Amino acid sequence: MDNKLMLMIPGPTPVPEKVLLALAKHPIGHRSADFSAIMAEVTENLKWLHQTQNDVLILTASGTGAMEAGIINFLSPGDRVLVGSNGKFGDRWAKLSKAFGLNVETVTAESGKALNPEEFKEKLVADTEKTIKAVIITHSETSTGVLNDLKTINRYVKDHGEALIIVDAVTSLGAVNIPIDDWGLDVVGSGSQKGYMIPPGLGFVSVSAKAWEAYKTAKLPRFYLDLGPCRKSAAKNTTPFTPAISMVIALQVALQMMRAEGLESIFARHQRLMGATRAAMKALSLPLFAPDEAASPAITAVAPVSVESEKIRSVMKKRFDIILAGGQDELSGKIFRMGHLGFVCDRDILAAIASLEATLTELGYESFTPGAGVAAAAQVLTQS
Amino acid sequence: MDNKLMLMIPGPTPVPEKVLLALAKHPIGHRSADFSAIMAEVTENLKWLHQTQNDVLILTASGTGAMEAGIINFLSPGDRVLVGSNGKFGDRWAKLSKAFGLNVETVTAESGKALNPEEFKEKLVADTEKTIKAVIITHSETSTGVLNDLKTINRYVKDHGEALIIVDAVTSLGAVNIPIDDWGLDVVGSGSQKGYMIPPGLGFVSVSAKAWEAYKTAKLPRFYLDLGPCRKSAAKNTTPFTPAISMVIALQVALQMMRAEGLESIFARHQRLMGATRAAMKALSLPLFAPDEAASPAITAVAPVSVESEKIRSVMKKRFDIILAGGQDELSGKIFRMGHLGFVCDRDILAAIASLEATLTELGYESFTPGAGVAAAAQVLTQS
Repeated sequence: MDNKLMLMIPGPTPVPEKVLLALAKHPIGHRSADFSAIMAEVTENLKWLHQTQNDVLILTASGTGAMEAGIINFLSPGDRVLVGSNGKFGDRWAKLSKAFGLNVETVTAESGKALNPEEFKEKLVADTEKTIKAVIITHSETSTGVLNDLKTINRYVKDHGEALIIVDAVTSLGAVNIPIDDWGLDVVGSGSQKGYMIPPGLGFVSVSAKAWEAYKTAKLPRFYLDLGPCRKSAAKNTTPFTPAISMVIALQVALQMMRAEGLESIFARHQRLMGATRAAMKALSLPLFAPDEAASPAITAVAPVSVESEKIRSVMKKRFDIILAGGQDELSGKIFRMGHLGFVCDRDILAAIASLEATLTELGYESFTPGAGVAAAAQVLTQS
Repeated sequence: MDNKLMLMIPGPTPVPEKVLLALAKHPIGHRSADFSAIMAEVTENLKWLHQTQNDVLILTASGTGAMEAGIINFLSPGDRVLVGSNGKFGDRWAKLSKAFGLNVETVTAESGKALNPEEFKEKLVADTEKTIKAVIITHSETSTGVLNDLKTINRYVKDHGEALIIVDAVTSLGAVNIPIDDWGLDVVGSGSQKGYMIPPGLGFVSVSAKAWEAYKTAKLPRFYLDLGPCRKSAAKNTTPFTPAISMVIALQVALQMMRAEGLESIFARHQRLMGATRAAMKALSLPLFAPDEAASPAITAVAPVSVESEKIRSVMKKRFDIILAGGQDELSGKIFRMGHLGFVCDRDILAAIASLEATLTELGYESFTPGAGVAAAAQVLTQS
């Protein structure tokens, strides 16, 4: 049905009406006092969201641009880095690091499995010469729905003492607790079209004092994504280059909504939505791609056996106007992914699961009792 | 008065209501057939606007990001480049090129004056070894309102035969004729918040076959701004990373409006607005910063003598809700700049000049006959 699309993908995520209306406002000049006041508020609220006193800088770029900034500003050609790679995004940071001439060692895990923190420990403990300059980790691996154990890996990085920890929190920030200051995370990159509840187009990078120390001697070339001028400008509530003004105005509204909801409620909501989604999939005998102990609160990947993923996606779209994500690259056709990230409420999960049940019935899938998925989801939603 | 702001700055420029409403639409998935259809239309219309069969690629970045992509994709460390520098933006491309380790030679002109094409000719003719790999030119220098003689400089580059021409057309594209294919311009960068009539957040780069040849051997590191994957994705009406979806949807509407107006009409309108603005300033005895023969159709810079620029800007804002740009860096306080770029009509110029006259009167400036500026502007507007 026209204009009835419901996004259940891991980005772009649904955007609240208030935020859409903010986007539709006439732009104002970015070198004005009015815009500086917005920047000041937004920056303060970004620090709140990031649970940090570190700088949180805004880039006109997607999450990949934010991650590039988070890597190239703190390293020099030939620097040894450990990159965790258990999916498309981990792979991307390895490729990016290689493109910039870093000496990349990957720590891998099978698709759908979490990275093993002990493998990082081993390499970090063995590095008595302190040649490892950074550990680059994807927190929530969007391609598989796996949440890596950032807390433990970070503890090993802290024990190493020298290496920076650089985190892709693109689909985890604003969905799960990432206490940047408590854990001492050096660089955390994220993107606007995820937990932030605004469309894609802005990237965010938080930078610790230790990372700024590394910045002083880092020699990778950079200009548009150079965070030094961003930091200087941010101190004056402005940006070195023209920012995506309308997006910043939308961000202001979205962050106000997030503050009103509260961090604990936001995290609890994502846990609840994830729990309900997973309980429903189990009740429908649809195998979950990621194990319970490493499940992302942003997205649930499902690997159906006696019914085709792409057919599920197709019927869900045509009959129920719900967009699910497919598998990427070698997972194409093997999994579907249901996003429950950002501006998603309990009702959305019930609607999606009810529609999924109807879809499965339409496709002749018989391994479930109609209503079982919705009942399982409802139980989690009402009990938590 | 609240909500009555009129932007007369060189970006962001005013955005049409239709485009604002497009921005306010719920985002759709960027890996969908619906979005691919938008990308296909937008790409075709971008080629129309650029008057080219070259690739025109869309980046989620500001104009500076587009220019960085336009430079780093086609050059290697140590490459000799000539950079035209007669203002803030020319200076920026020299800094950017140095940051990436290029061997930069600048051809300069005084602020407010155009670059001398003969100085390029001299260096290009002397370069019998063909060591000059690129000439980087800012077409419309936004900081001073000067339009450089791109056509002539490009002819000398073509005579050289080896060097690429890389053009910053950020405030000239969509305002003045730039026949990319006719002139054989290799790389042309631009940004959304200018002639395109949408807010900032997207950058555009057109790339010639000759530039793609250079791409094959270019060794500067790149990932987020790597145009190779952009080109591959564009061929399938998609992007390598998540694009600023809402901005692309807005761009679709803006380009439809531009096609409906027609290129010749758009260029004639900008010429007319520039002519009226300059005639008015002369009638008000306000010295123009750029000479007539090198005047930008995007923006007019004015260097008042017996009245302060910053006071003019302040009264124009407070009393008439019109935002003018000030001077940047060393021109701060010395000039004001009136943008007449993008979604600006004849009435806007009359309103701005009438308000300027009232402002001058309020500031006790006596070197003009009240009404003379409006009359001079009206004469140009009605006669052309």
